[in-house]
Amino acid sequence: MANPVNPPRGMRDFLPAEKAKREAVLALIKGTYAAHGFQEIETPAMEDLARLTSGQGGDNEKLAYRVMKRGAELEQAIADGTELADLGLRFDLTVPLTRYYATNRASLPNVFKAIQVGPVWRAERPQKGRYRQFVQCDIDIIGDSTPLAELELLNASLNALDVLGLTDAVIRVNHRALLVKLLNDLGVPEADHGSAMITIDKLDKIELAGVVTELTERLGESVGKAFEAWFLEVDTTVPPAELEDLFSLIRPGRLRFDPTLVRGMGYYTGPIFEIDHPGSGSSIGGGGRYDGMVGKWLGTDVPAVGISIGFERVLDLVADEVAADEMPAVVLVLEDSSKLTLSNAFAIQKELWAEGANVRFELKPKRLNLLLDSMSANGFDAFAVVTEDTSSLAELEVRPIGQSLD
Amino acid sequence: MANPVNPPRGMRDFLPAEKAKREAVLALIKGTYAAHGFQEIETPAMEDLARLTSGQGGDNEKLAYRVMKRGAELEQAIADGTELADLGLRFDLTVPLTRYYATNRASLPNVFKAIQVGPVWRAERPQKGRYRQFVQCDIDIIGDSTPLAELELLNASLNALDVLGLTDAVIRVNHRALLVKLLNDLGVPEADHGSAMITIDKLDKIELAGVVTELTERLGESVGKAFEAWFLEVDTTVPPAELEDLFSLIRPGRLRFDPTLVRGMGYYTGPIFEIDHPGSGSSIGGGGRYDGMVGKWLGTDVPAVGISIGFERVLDLVADEVAADEMPAVVLVLEDSSKLTLSNAFAIQKELWAEGANVRFELKPKRLNLLLDSMSANGFDAFAVVTEDTSSLAELEVRPIGQSLD
Repeated sequence: MANPVNPPRGMRDFLPAEKAKREAVLALIKGTYAAHGFQEIETPAMEDLARLTSGQGGDNEKLAYRVMKRGAELEQAIADGTELADLGLRFDLTVPLTRYYATNRASLPNVFKAIQVGPVWRAERPQKGRYRQFVQCDIDIIGDSTPLAELELLNASLNALDVLGLTDAVIRVNHRALLVKLLNDLGVPEADHGSAMITIDKLDKIELAGVVTELTERLGESVGKAFEAWFLEVDTTVPPAELEDLFSLIRPGRLRFDPTLVRGMGYYTGPIFEIDHPGSGSSIGGGGRYDGMVGKWLGTDVPAVGISIGFERVLDLVADEVAADEMPAVVLVLEDSSKLTLSNAFAIQKELWAEGANVRFELKPKRLNLLLDSMSANGFDAFAVVTEDTSSLAELEVRPIGQSLD
Repeated sequence: MANPVNPPRGMRDFLPAEKAKREAVLALIKGTYAAHGFQEIETPAMEDLARLTSGQGGDNEKLAYRVMKRGAELEQAIADGTELADLGLRFDLTVPLTRYYATNRASLPNVFKAIQVGPVWRAERPQKGRYRQFVQCDIDIIGDSTPLAELELLNASLNALDVLGLTDAVIRVNHRALLVKLLNDLGVPEADHGSAMITIDKLDKIELAGVVTELTERLGESVGKAFEAWFLEVDTTVPPAELEDLFSLIRPGRLRFDPTLVRGMGYYTGPIFEIDHPGSGSSIGGGGRYDGMVGKWLGTDVPAVGISIGFERVLDLVADEVAADEMPAVVLVLEDSSKLTLSNAFAIQKELWAEGANVRFELKPKRLNLLLDSMSANGFDAFAVVTEDTSSLAELEVRPIGQSLD
C-alpha cells in the first residue's frame, strides 16, 4: 500500500545523510565567503505582500505563496471583498535584501558585503529537479560602484566552487551596456530592446536559426540579418574594454566573455554573470550589477552587485567525499541496561569524546547485524560492546562496522 | 522621519553581529547533540493544512499562518465558498516530525535520534520577547520505550547547556502517571483531570492560595483542601520510584523532582521535563514522553520522547564570548585601485588566509578612521594598508583596529 502521508507537493524531507551533506556544503560555501570578508545576515521568511509584489521580482512575483490575513482583519477583508492576504513567502533573497538595506542602513558599513543563505518558495508546477521550496545562496556588495566589487564577488564565487571541487566551473560574463550598444547597432528601436533581449536569451534553446527567425518576425528582416552577420563575426576571445579589468585580474580560464548573455531580470545595469559547469545541463548560478534597485525604498540610487549560487544544482555536482564528516562516529552497544553497564558506557563515551568521536548508545538487540547495517547506512563507522565488566576504552574492542560479529 | 520600511510585524531582521552569534550558538548546540549520536533532519516549512490542524498541535493550531490556494483551485474554492487555504506554516517541530516519521520510517534506524533546528511561525500578538517567527531546537528519540531514551535526552540537553556556559540550568522532572495518581488520590473524577491539571499548572502565577481557590470553585471544597494538605506535606527531595533511575544516573544537582509540573500539551504519557535557569524568568525549554502521537499517521503506537530548547531565550543568556568567532578578521585597505595594488592585495590575502584569517578589501576612503570604526563594530580586529610598493605580508604593518592612524 502506498504511504499517503507525504510532505506538500513539490517540497522535500531530508534524511540524515542528505541533511548532513547539505549542511557540510553550505558550511564550505559560507566559510569561503566569510574568508573574503562577507558577513551573513538574515531576514524573515515572509515580507509584506504589497512590498513583495511591487515589481522588483519580475515574473517570480506571480509565483509567491500568499499568506492569509487573520482574525478581524480577515473578516473585514471578506466582508469588503478586498485582498485576503497580507503577507507573502519570499521567492528570492534579492527583494528582501533591498528591504533589509532600507530598514537597517544606519547600522551597516558603508560598503556592505552580505551573505544570505536560506529557503525561498515558489508555487511552480513541480517537475524533475524543480522544487517549491529550495535554498538560495547569495552574496551581494552594496555601496561600491567600482569594479572592485565585481572582482571580489567573482573571486569569492570561484573560490567557493573550487572548495567544493567544482574547479571546472566557468563564469560567462557580459555587460548590459554592450547589449544595448549591440541592439542599437542592429537597428532595434529602444522600445523593442526588452523584446529583442528575450529572443536573444533563447539562443541556447532555439539556436542561431531560431533566433534569427524570431527577430525577423518581430523586428523585421534587417534586424534578423544584422544579428546573424554580427553573431558569425563576433570575436569572443578578446574581452571588450568594459570588462578588461575583470579579465586581467581573475585567474585565466575561469571567465568567458559571452556577448549574447542576457540574464532575464530587467533590473541589471552593468556586468552580468552566469556560472556553468560541464556536469550540469543548465547554469548553476548567476548575477550582475543592479544599481537602481536597492535604493528604491530610500528614494536614491545605491550601487549594488550580487551573485547567487543555485544551491540545489550545485549539491548534485559535489562529490559525497567533499562533504564527508571527518568526525569518527561510534556506536556503543550496551549488553544490558543495568546501572553498572550504563555507568561504564558513560565513562567510555567521555573517553571517545576526548578523541573527537560522536558516540551513540544502542541497547543490544536480538539481531545485532541488522542494527549494525542500519548504523552503517546512517554514517556510523565503528562499534564496541559495553558490558558490566568493561569500564574503560582500553578494555573494549572497537571494530569497524561491516566486520561481522557472528 | 521614521523609517517606514520594516519587516512584517513581530518578525525580525538580524544584523551581521546578531546573526554570527545565532549561528555560533546553534553550532555549539548541534555539535553537542551530534556527539550523542543524534542526526539532523529537515522538513519543509509548510505542511498540508488539514494535517497541521488535526488536533496534535493543541492551542498552537489556532496560531498557524494559512497559505492560500493558487490558480484554478483558488477560484473553485471562492466559487464554492470552501476553504481558501491548503497549506500552513509549521507552528512547532513536533507535528512535522510525526508526519516525517510516517513518511520516511522505512529509511530510518529502528531507534531514530533526530535533531531538528529551524524557524516556526505563530500568529501571536507581538509583545516583548515574543516573536511571530522564531527558532526551535528539538531532539527526539523515536522507537525506544526504555528509560535509556530519557537518560540520553537529558544528558545531551545538560551537556548542550554546559557548552553554552549555562551550567546553572536545572531540569525539573515529573511523571504523568504521578499526576494521574495524585488527582485520583485527591478525589478528582477522571473526566475533570484535564481541567485540574490546567489549574495546578498555574501554581507559578497564582501560587498555592490561588490554586486552592480555583480547585475549590471548579471541583469542590474537598479537592481544594486535599490539594493544599498534599502540597504542604509532599517531599520533593526524594524522587519517586518512577524517576529513580534518571535521578541516580544523571549528575547530582541538575535534576529536580517537581510533583506539580504539568506541561501544557495533552499528549504526554510519561516523564515530563522543564528547563529553568536563574537568568530567565520563564522556562528555557521542556519536553517529555509522548508515546501515542508519532504513530498516529501509521495507525500504531510508537514510543517517543523529545525535548525542545527555547533558542531565543537561551540566546539572551549566552555570553557573547562563548559565541565569539576565533578567526582573526583583517581589513586590507587599498591605497588605490591600480592593477598593481590589487595584485599585491590578492597575494597578501592569500598569505593571511594561510594563517586562518578572514580578509576584507576596502578602498581607502577620505576619512580612514570612520571606516575603521565601522569595521571594528562589524567584528574586524586588525587592518593594514596595501600600496603599489607592498607585495607581501612581511612588508606590511598589521595593526589592531582601534589604534588610530592619524
